[in-house]
Amino acid sequence: MPDPAPRVISLPARYYTSHEHYERELDWFFRRMWVHVGREKDLSRRGDFKVVSPAGESLIIVREDEERVGAFSNVCRHRGTRLCAVDSGTFGSTIQCPYHAWTYALDGTLSAAPGMDRVEGFQREDYPLSRARLATWDGHMFIHMGDSPGSLATQLANRDALFRDWGMNELVVGNRIVYDVAANWKLIIHNYSECLHCPGVHPALQKLSHYLSGENEPAEPGVLGGRMRLRDGIGTLSMDGRLKRACLPGLEPEECRFVYFYAFLPNLLLSLHPDYVMTHTLWPRSVGRTEIVCEWLFHPRETAQDDFNPDDAVAFWDLTNRQDWHVCEEMQIGLGSRGYRPGPYSHREELLVEFDRLILAAERMAADDPHGREPYVPRHVTGPGNVGDNDR
Amino acid sequence: MPDPAPRVISLPARYYTSHEHYERELDWFFRRMWVHVGREKDLSRRGDFKVVSPAGESLIIVREDEERVGAFSNVCRHRGTRLCAVDSGTFGSTIQCPYHAWTYALDGTLSAAPGMDRVEGFQREDYPLSRARLATWDGHMFIHMGDSPGSLATQLANRDALFRDWGMNELVVGNRIVYDVAANWKLIIHNYSECLHCPGVHPALQKLSHYLSGENEPAEPGVLGGRMRLRDGIGTLSMDGRLKRACLPGLEPEECRFVYFYAFLPNLLLSLHPDYVMTHTLWPRSVGRTEIVCEWLFHPRETAQDDFNPDDAVAFWDLTNRQDWHVCEEMQIGLGSRGYRPGPYSHREELLVEFDRLILAAERMAADDPHGREPYVPRHVTGPGNVGDNDR
Amino acid sequence: MPDPAPRVISLPARYYTSHEHYERELDWFFRRMWVHVGREKDLSRRGDFKVVSPAGESLIIVREDEERVGAFSNVCRHRGTRLCAVDSGTFGSTIQCPYHAWTYALDGTLSAAPGMDRVEGFQREDYPLSRARLATWDGHMFIHMGDSPGSLATQLANRDALFRDWGMNELVVGNRIVYDVAANWKLIIHNYSECLHCPGVHPALQKLSHYLSGENEPAEPGVLGGRMRLRDGIGTLSMDGRLKRACLPGLEPEECRFVYFYAFLPNLLLSLHPDYVMTHTLWPRSVGRTEIVCEWLFHPRETAQDDFNPDDAVAFWDLTNRQDWHVCEEMQIGLGSRGYRPGPYSHREELLVEFDRLILAAERMAADDPHGREPYVPRHVTGPGNVGDNDR
Repeated sequence: MPDPAPRVISLPARYYTSHEHYERELDWFFRRMWVHVGREKDLSRRGDFKVVSPAGESLIIVREDEERVGAFSNVCRHRGTRLCAVDSGTFGSTIQCPYHAWTYALDGTLSAAPGMDRVEGFQREDYPLSRARLATWDGHMFIHMGDSPGSLATQLANRDALFRDWGMNELVVGNRIVYDVAANWKLIIHNYSECLHCPGVHPALQKLSHYLSGENEPAEPGVLGGRMRLRDGIGTLSMDGRLKRACLPGLEPEECRFVYFYAFLPNLLLSLHPDYVMTHTLWPRSVGRTEIVCEWLFHPRETAQDDFNPDDAVAFWDLTNRQDWHVCEEMQIGLGSRGYRPGPYSHREELLVEFDRLILAAERMAADDPHGREPYVPRHVTGPGNVGDNDR
Repeated sequence: MPDPAPRVISLPARYYTSHEHYERELDWFFRRMWVHVGREKDLSRRGDFKVVSPAGESLIIVREDEERVGAFSNVCRHRGTRLCAVDSGTFGSTIQCPYHAWTYALDGTLSAAPGMDRVEGFQREDYPLSRARLATWDGHMFIHMGDSPGSLATQLANRDALFRDWGMNELVVGNRIVYDVAANWKLIIHNYSECLHCPGVHPALQKLSHYLSGENEPAEPGVLGGRMRLRDGIGTLSMDGRLKRACLPGLEPEECRFVYFYAFLPNLLLSLHPDYVMTHTLWPRSVGRTEIVCEWLFHPRETAQDDFNPDDAVAFWDLTNRQDWHVCEEMQIGLGSRGYRPGPYSHREELLVEFDRLILAAERMAADDPHGREPYVPRHVTGPGNVGDNDR
Repeated sequence: MPDPAPRVISLPARYYTSHEHYERELDWFFRRMWVHVGREKDLSRRGDFKVVSPAGESLIIVREDEERVGAFSNVCRHRGTRLCAVDSGTFGSTIQCPYHAWTYALDGTLSAAPGMDRVEGFQREDYPLSRARLATWDGHMFIHMGDSPGSLATQLANRDALFRDWGMNELVVGNRIVYDVAANWKLIIHNYSECLHCPGVHPALQKLSHYLSGENEPAEPGVLGGRMRLRDGIGTLSMDGRLKRACLPGLEPEECRFVYFYAFLPNLLLSLHPDYVMTHTLWPRSVGRTEIVCEWLFHPRETAQDDFNPDDAVAFWDLTNRQDWHVCEEMQIGLGSRGYRPGPYSHREELLVEFDRLILAAERMAADDPHGREPYVPRHVTGPGNVGDNDR
């Protein structure tokens, strides 16, 4: 008989419904941490770009040359016009403002500024595009908008090596679906971090992997994860559970019997299957709304085949995603009712308890440093059993 | 020649346009008074339920057994998910949360909580659904969300006996229309409480009952009403004024010559005709928006007939309702203009003056008791002629 | 080689994105200045009216008699109902409230108030419609909602005589288009006040008038303008540049070689062409939204002709307008990004610098007079080069 789990209750409603709290969380988690922005392989040619919008910013992620991808503020240095109005595409050799034609090279330097020649002391080199830091891990790109970031590796809690066998660096996007979910971003992470809901919410998943087969790793600050075992005779997570393509080349046989689920705060959910990898990238849009980009990554040997077809994996997860978003939305509605009172977590929701502790720790740290000058680094926190309380 | 009426002016615009004022009114009137939620006869079988949403709450009204109808918070005690996403229906023997399958009996007790068995000190009896008080009057159900309510009879100013002859307890809903009106909830009550507007706004009504035939009863706190005489040859309020069904069995002949209009604060408008009763239930949704549920109640002997047809009454009032909502919406727009200045009430708007005084009295009482611990009971108030002033 | 222009940077983002700042600007510019409301010629017959909505007010502009056009609050003095729900039309001899039939003469006096006869001390003469001041200049009507306006001529900086040759008093509206633009009202004025953007944004305009042909007049407080020369062989601004109707009769040949562009603060943009005049009337609707009424005015000798056709002028400017609104909207989006930093104006944006100085001067004056009792009169301001700063 295992030890009893401590009784811990969920957070007060304001953490999920208050606009002010939401704005603070953007500061704590999205402006002071490395934020996932997508796959470097998507930007293969010089000038390839995508636009992402973290925490009230708009950033252009662009391949500057063979070596480098850069992240620039999508705002002209002249009078502030948005430079790029589309989500993705390929620039020629420059980025030009649609209003007065200020023109920037792909490395952000200002190369032309019509009509500024007579302005006293004006020098083009003083007005490059604002650049944000960009780093990559196994092909995943992250940006940082703060002044003094720690290393990406530190934020990943040195779990960056953990998935080397999957060779993520090589993988390419085989499909992408964008979801608009009427729920707070933290509820998405909650939902991802436990499978107690799986028997009722995901009958199809339950046939492929038993919800009690999950083993969580000890949580690291900023990294919450574990793995679930595929049932006997099941090859991967797909509509029929059969493996229709080769396992990823670096995997051990034992690794092919599990699916690994890891949440990397603040916004990357990484799901590793024997034959493909899935990422969810979370973009909080308001306290009660989150945009979620779901991408399915495959080995290039697979995508290069004439009859490559990712539908078995995509259809399974699209169904599962929608089931999850539905209960997250119902929870968001319930939390908005004055009748909500924080309730007790089950011992199968231990990662949620860890996550709530990080939220509270960030809040305490912000209270100690109201000007937000210290970079936020999630830390191990211990504390009383009850992380929430009954007030709102 | 009657005595002159004192000159009283209407309330400042903020009472109808300020979000903060609206939120306070929800406290004064909807969280500290008995609130009408509909007809008990609608929930005849065990498990029959409806969901209502007073003042930011969501409540399930459910028949627990033959004897009892209960009101429960529509929020799971586990993590706050909304339990029930539909407006009405019939539960089996339990209410189950869609997320982690916490399951409640119809009396609100928690009967199953998967995965909680190892949580220290967890006992199911500690987590029943939150219950609100529910009381009925002649078949009308009312709920109370506060801690120390007075009796429903007190709130009804002992007018509960006044309409015994109509036998409302027996009546059943023959039709229901839900309106979404872009006007403050108080303007709906204003509109209901005077017929000075009838000649211009309701030409069809004017043919059935002369607007000057109205006689108001002395207002009681929380109860504003009176009656209007049907014109000679007119049997009821309907498209052609003819009585197409029997008068309600308990009525005296004299009572069949009038229509009785009573506003029971905060949200029930009760209109009693010789052959049917109509209720409007008001649900404030924002400072400038009110949802209104209009129900037509008939004697079960009528609804049981094969050729039962409520259209004469429904069509007449649907027309009249829409005329009323239109002028209420035009008034809401006007009050939102900076050009509005409070103006003088006519002596035919005396109930509006009483109603405004209740609003002001509630405001004063709230100022005296900022923590809102005292139950609000509308009281007779006397005061200066001018209830409003010119500031905003 | 001309003198260098001082380096001046644009305003912080809050001037374009903060709701609070927007509300203050409505006070400074729309409630304390004369505001353009349209053409008097549009209201030629007794009872002709239009409804305009400046700064949270709703006003009826109505021809009272042959001599006089009046501006009245569109709100009944009884209980505040909106009097008139349509944009324009013709009243009979009265204005009647749709709710309780209070009835006003066209001069705003209350002529009937049903049911008020018994109200103590009530006198109809105490409740006329609230009147705002109205003045006209060359057929353009302006209203003023404040208590102590200066003269309209003063606000026009005595530029009222400047355009006498165009005989605007006689002109009539030949076409009207209303635009809803997702940009702050000041960005529309910025856009109108420089042609540095013309080569890239308006290729069709560039073929008719070279963007460097512009000559700005020294700015007067509240009046920013200049003129641009038509290219050789070009007769007017139209799709093909050909003059299809007579020049306005009072013009000198030299005046026919230019187009004059003048912004009269707060909300009239006046564009004078050899053969027609165009006005843009700006109606701020929120901090990020402006409704713009564009009217094309022609000589009555032209509009009286059977084959009168304004399409050449309308199509040209509708295209040019839409190009302008697009870049204004892109600028509004960019200013809403946290990545925006004020940038340097070119020496071809000198009128924008003047305009920004007026904004800052109004802000300073409001700080000195927080109760806003002094009428705001734009004044010449000198100051440091940098009108903006880097904070938000």
